[in-house]
Amino acid sequence: MTIRLTTLDNGLRIVSEARPMLETVSVGLWVDVGSRHEPAPLNGVTHCLEHMLFKGTERRTAQDIVLEIESVGGHINAYTSRDHTTYYARTLKDDLPLAVDILADILMNSVFDEGELTREKDVILQEIGQAQDTPDDIVFDHLQSVAYPDQSLGWSILGTPDTVRSFNRDALFSFMADKYRAGSIIVAAVGNLDHDRLVDMARSRFSGLPSGRREADATARYAPGCMVEQRPLEQVHLALAWPGVAHKAPEYYATQIYSTILGGGMSSRLFQKIREERGLAYSIYSFSASHADTGLLGVYAGTSPDQAETVLSLIEEDVQGLAAGATLAELASAKAQLKAGLMMALEATGSRMEQLGRQMLIYGRVIPTEEILMSLDAVTPDDVAAVAVRMAESGTRALAAVGGGPVEDLLKAA
Amino acid sequence: MTIRLTTLDNGLRIVSEARPMLETVSVGLWVDVGSRHEPAPLNGVTHCLEHMLFKGTERRTAQDIVLEIESVGGHINAYTSRDHTTYYARTLKDDLPLAVDILADILMNSVFDEGELTREKDVILQEIGQAQDTPDDIVFDHLQSVAYPDQSLGWSILGTPDTVRSFNRDALFSFMADKYRAGSIIVAAVGNLDHDRLVDMARSRFSGLPSGRREADATARYAPGCMVEQRPLEQVHLALAWPGVAHKAPEYYATQIYSTILGGGMSSRLFQKIREERGLAYSIYSFSASHADTGLLGVYAGTSPDQAETVLSLIEEDVQGLAAGATLAELASAKAQLKAGLMMALEATGSRMEQLGRQMLIYGRVIPTEEILMSLDAVTPDDVAAVAVRMAESGTRALAAVGGGPVEDLLKAA
Repeated sequence: MTIRLTTLDNGLRIVSEARPMLETVSVGLWVDVGSRHEPAPLNGVTHCLEHMLFKGTERRTAQDIVLEIESVGGHINAYTSRDHTTYYARTLKDDLPLAVDILADILMNSVFDEGELTREKDVILQEIGQAQDTPDDIVFDHLQSVAYPDQSLGWSILGTPDTVRSFNRDALFSFMADKYRAGSIIVAAVGNLDHDRLVDMARSRFSGLPSGRREADATARYAPGCMVEQRPLEQVHLALAWPGVAHKAPEYYATQIYSTILGGGMSSRLFQKIREERGLAYSIYSFSASHADTGLLGVYAGTSPDQAETVLSLIEEDVQGLAAGATLAELASAKAQLKAGLMMALEATGSRMEQLGRQMLIYGRVIPTEEILMSLDAVTPDDVAAVAVRMAESGTRALAAVGGGPVEDLLKAA
Repeated sequence: MTIRLTTLDNGLRIVSEARPMLETVSVGLWVDVGSRHEPAPLNGVTHCLEHMLFKGTERRTAQDIVLEIESVGGHINAYTSRDHTTYYARTLKDDLPLAVDILADILMNSVFDEGELTREKDVILQEIGQAQDTPDDIVFDHLQSVAYPDQSLGWSILGTPDTVRSFNRDALFSFMADKYRAGSIIVAAVGNLDHDRLVDMARSRFSGLPSGRREADATARYAPGCMVEQRPLEQVHLALAWPGVAHKAPEYYATQIYSTILGGGMSSRLFQKIREERGLAYSIYSFSASHADTGLLGVYAGTSPDQAETVLSLIEEDVQGLAAGATLAELASAKAQLKAGLMMALEATGSRMEQLGRQMLIYGRVIPTEEILMSLDAVTPDDVAAVAVRMAESGTRALAAVGGGPVEDLLKAA
């Protein structure tokens, strides 16, 4: 497994890991543009752009794009996050040139046909409807809007029905021309491949991209607060968040370890107390979400409306309890879980490709696995205690709830 | 990659594939017992049993079970389907003995503590609540109950709140003693492992299992029909099904190919017509679900309430249209997609372990990949046309709908 990195003259970077024993290859375009880079009237435009890149180029119709890749058994897709947009394909090894050709074609030569845009906006409205109908999905949108009020980081990735309806061809074109610059794009590939041939393909297709990078992010400002939405549901879906860590924060790994101890697995404190000892939830877990400048450390739980206040108190109790210190066994277990999880993710080409693309965008380099393992090992009990004390003393938190019963009462508990 | 199979004296089978270049290993216990093997008053007992096997053994508390595996960075979990129950773990390669020891311990020595059972029933009630709150999940339970009325194959895997509340320790014990027999259990492992050592471990731990197999399935009887549930949602979630194929049906592969052409990918007929040409849905896909004696060939779509009848008509139109024959290009593309999908799944230890376990339970042997590729290649246009004509002429179908708007009108369209 050999990692190689090449930078083209315009700044586009190509990173690959060759795995000659495999039959397949995963390749992705990682673009350093997400919904947080949108102005308010264009909320959702990054995601709409991601959809429209599949709707036809100068050489290919929308149908050609998927037909060509699927007719050789490959697949192609994309997704948008708050920070990044990713276009990716997976194919048998011999079809990597086709995958790169198509990914490059949709990035460089999309035509944004007006009729296609009209229909695709309808598809996105359906996607918004589907997300609205999924309470343990939408509760995280609510949480984000509480934690980052009146800021792009707090908006929905999909946009609102109104903003989506307002998009036109010119808005998409100029947003893309402004943001999609060679310095903000990574080509990442893992599998049975030859790096030099990958670079040749990329050079011939992406050289026309303008150099430079998009402008820097505005700094996000976390705020505590509460948002509850009453719906006729069986459960109340609760999502809470405290201030977390940015990607490059010194306490990044200590925070990962803290989150693992709090609610990362079935042996975690929250899972044991709320599910195993009390039977109050089926799904309960913690998460740590990081961005360039900020992050959230949070918890999700789905419970009965009449138990929601109890669950909130128990979560608070565990957060306070951890400030008294995790045990050395918990610390060792959390490290082992994170280290083994990393080794497992490395074995799948798709997740390894994702890791390479993300690391290049976030850190500007591929972080050796050995370095991550050492960083985890280097975290001391004091480092984790510092995170725990900060959590316990932060006092306020962001809370979102969607569900049945008198959820307004949660406002009092919040 | 060497596949080896060993049968113990009591009939328990151990199948493994060694991948010495990897750092991890996936191991699972595949039990040939699912919710369809339940009597009506015990609907949900298979799933409850699956939960209770994590609640303590003679040597380990519930917390020990997860702590021991997570403290070395591994994870352990389980799931229940209509046909099978699977207990699995993934660990670093050196921890395979621990994983096997724990999986064997929970299977052989669980104590079903009454207090644990009381709490775990609460957890399952929360799990039922969560499933109820997920419309594109629950619509498939409704579809199953329409297609297989008054039969165990039509019931929910989770059971109902009433049946779950009624379970007691004796019911779990006797269900398990009756069904969990050595001939109905497979130990499957893929990764960095030594087959002979795996067999030694399994022999020392599973020899106490009674030989024999559970009794044969009752034959399921498909029925057309309709079930609609009105809820205040943005979308209507539609699930339709026609009679499909059993696992060993001669037309098994032709049916997979048909389903792929109809709605298997982004180039499929349904995706192109309903999403790409009309913008009527975000999610639309077909599926083929097989059991020992029966199967369903179906379609899911999420759309707006006012477009539901149109979407149903368009699906019907595509089913009728395919009876006129797929193109040779569609046939070739579907074969390529299924073949490449198989190669991709082989590369992940978890999905390969799943494939080995399922094949052993269903076919009694590991099917060589080459044989599956040849079976797909051997499917002729006439074979697919036969499936298409049968679909188009079947006339009636099972339909379930959950969603907003006047869904009762769908009864008329059904």
